[in-house]
Amino acid sequence: MTGELTALPDIEPSRLEVIDNPSPRPTPSSSSLVFGKVFTDHMLTIPWTEANGWDAPKIVPYGPLSLEPSCTVLHYAQTLFEGMKAYRNDAGKVTLFRPDMNMKRMVTSAKRIALPTFNGDALLELIKILIRKDKHWIPKDPGHSLYVRPTLIGTQRAIGVGPPNEALLFVICSPVGPYYPQGFKPVALYGTTEYIRAAPGGTGGYKLGANYAPGVVPQKEAAEKGYVQNLWLHGPEHYLTEVGTMNMFIAFKTADGQTELVTPPLDGMILPGVTRDSVLRLARDKIAGLPKDLIVNERPVTMNEVKEASLDGRLVELFGAGTAAVISPVDRIGYLGEDILIPTGPDGMGPISRVIWKELIGRQTGSIPSDWSVTVAES
Amino acid sequence: MTGELTALPDIEPSRLEVIDNPSPRPTPSSSSLVFGKVFTDHMLTIPWTEANGWDAPKIVPYGPLSLEPSCTVLHYAQTLFEGMKAYRNDAGKVTLFRPDMNMKRMVTSAKRIALPTFNGDALLELIKILIRKDKHWIPKDPGHSLYVRPTLIGTQRAIGVGPPNEALLFVICSPVGPYYPQGFKPVALYGTTEYIRAAPGGTGGYKLGANYAPGVVPQKEAAEKGYVQNLWLHGPEHYLTEVGTMNMFIAFKTADGQTELVTPPLDGMILPGVTRDSVLRLARDKIAGLPKDLIVNERPVTMNEVKEASLDGRLVELFGAGTAAVISPVDRIGYLGEDILIPTGPDGMGPISRVIWKELIGRQTGSIPSDWSVTVAES
Repeated sequence: MTGELTALPDIEPSRLEVIDNPSPRPTPSSSSLVFGKVFTDHMLTIPWTEANGWDAPKIVPYGPLSLEPSCTVLHYAQTLFEGMKAYRNDAGKVTLFRPDMNMKRMVTSAKRIALPTFNGDALLELIKILIRKDKHWIPKDPGHSLYVRPTLIGTQRAIGVGPPNEALLFVICSPVGPYYPQGFKPVALYGTTEYIRAAPGGTGGYKLGANYAPGVVPQKEAAEKGYVQNLWLHGPEHYLTEVGTMNMFIAFKTADGQTELVTPPLDGMILPGVTRDSVLRLARDKIAGLPKDLIVNERPVTMNEVKEASLDGRLVELFGAGTAAVISPVDRIGYLGEDILIPTGPDGMGPISRVIWKELIGRQTGSIPSDWSVTVAES
Repeated sequence: MTGELTALPDIEPSRLEVIDNPSPRPTPSSSSLVFGKVFTDHMLTIPWTEANGWDAPKIVPYGPLSLEPSCTVLHYAQTLFEGMKAYRNDAGKVTLFRPDMNMKRMVTSAKRIALPTFNGDALLELIKILIRKDKHWIPKDPGHSLYVRPTLIGTQRAIGVGPPNEALLFVICSPVGPYYPQGFKPVALYGTTEYIRAAPGGTGGYKLGANYAPGVVPQKEAAEKGYVQNLWLHGPEHYLTEVGTMNMFIAFKTADGQTELVTPPLDGMILPGVTRDSVLRLARDKIAGLPKDLIVNERPVTMNEVKEASLDGRLVELFGAGTAAVISPVDRIGYLGEDILIPTGPDGMGPISRVIWKELIGRQTGSIPSDWSVTVAES
């Protein structure tokens, strides 16, 4: 995870400068939280130039950035981001969930659009300092957390298309509530055949801003048809790829009665999600409660296979997996004019997602000890 | 071209407020100009909110924008832009080239990523006022012009993915020199098979920022291999689509000795370029100097067809077409490890591009009168 420009300064936590917010705000009540609308008192900023590498990191009061109207991010979408959550338990201990994976992915994303790379461990150290500074903003209520958003943008003051000679890395934090405050509510998906999210040779496997704006209108159209999210399909075979902005899993009963959990393979069109990886790991470890004969596969699945399994009664469940919602069960897919029904239990979940969600939430909040939980502050 | 939110205010030129730049800068010498690095003294800004529609337009001193770190353009690439050129002749007359096409395309782009639409005629009127204000910045030297860059960004202060509730339209202007100061120099293209620019159901047919950042690394890799630009190919058949950030044309001798000019069709993967449309119109109008038997087709072309035509001596020429370079002749394509040679004349051009370029430049600068040239200022 070392920056490529070894001759120039990398991100260096010892150079951190901190400017306290002179007007800290009262923290909002947990019940009033809407995802990503309120931000904490401070943010982290680290500028980079091609000539001088990474400059000194700064923690400063949260506030507007001053950006030249010519800067590359505003014209050519030179931006990438990460999403991670910090949890605070009753004793005040603050933890992050597998943040090393976000740091690695952020460096991979940077390479894909010619933004500067950096030492991910150094950035993580600075993010921990930022979280500690604003840790009173982390709601303690069940299902609540602090959503941490590291972002890297090209800020070259010229509108030629190319690798930028200036960039800015910044990290902002937003207290968030549970995705499903009233318990799990399975969602209906619209199988989108008119638009794509990704294609081979494109950027679907990287967490780039460019993957998101094009998805807004398809999502709006799905909502107008009465569905909550898109199911992104690929190719004439209509391979299932992702659900909205989440990875997806599907479980089948096989012909010989076993249970198979499937997620699409990382073929360049699928985001290598931290939750995706965690679900796969827990399923492959066959944690207590999962079917003893569970088979786990990363393989392509077509809509025809889903449809046939539904008709044969072999569809066990289908769910999205991502940092924001963690697990998002699905009960219906609108596909080419008909609805395919997906089983869900009385609690809204299925037999595999229920077990995995409980374990995941436990490991994320720290109530189930694991090395996936990284301590940010002891109390 | 009327905005969709008819109940809310559209862009309204009569509400324009002008704040003069108190410190106008000296204009740069024409010989020092690098594309898109220097900007004029003023810019146009028009904010929009979901609640109140388009606010009063302002012409203000060119300078940094203040943007919240949470704003959508920085995270989700909610940005689109246009590129157009203003020319100034010896008598001081200032013209734009087919600006109505840019306005129409900008509205089309806005719809594709859920940004607000607007009355394109009203925006054009304001752009003309901006150009008149800074018209002394337009270099008069041959091949020089003022590059005008209208941009529309989502500025919602929240990181949920969705249609933004705030946006900002701004226009900046940059004096630019000729793309080929020493006469035409044909470029070598690298036929990119590892990356894509666009795919069916994607955004390649819209002028969105999201189409550009992903092309930087492929372009860098082509340069490292000794080529100037990418030739973007599509599908297992390797259909030719675009050249770098330009549309492309190819001319063949047909089996019965006619000349065929071809450009890929507007199938959703091809940007509907203003220069592309102009080349097609001039070719279909068979302007003086073009082969009498010229056939013009919008149809797919595969690399195999190009290779075979090259081997048979039926390849007449291949060129890029776009606002920045106008016409960009190609003399070589690196494809799967070999080089396909393309004929060019002693002046670097081919028999069709030479005729069309001369007519285009004439109509753009106004030396050849046409209704494509729109007057901005008489002197």
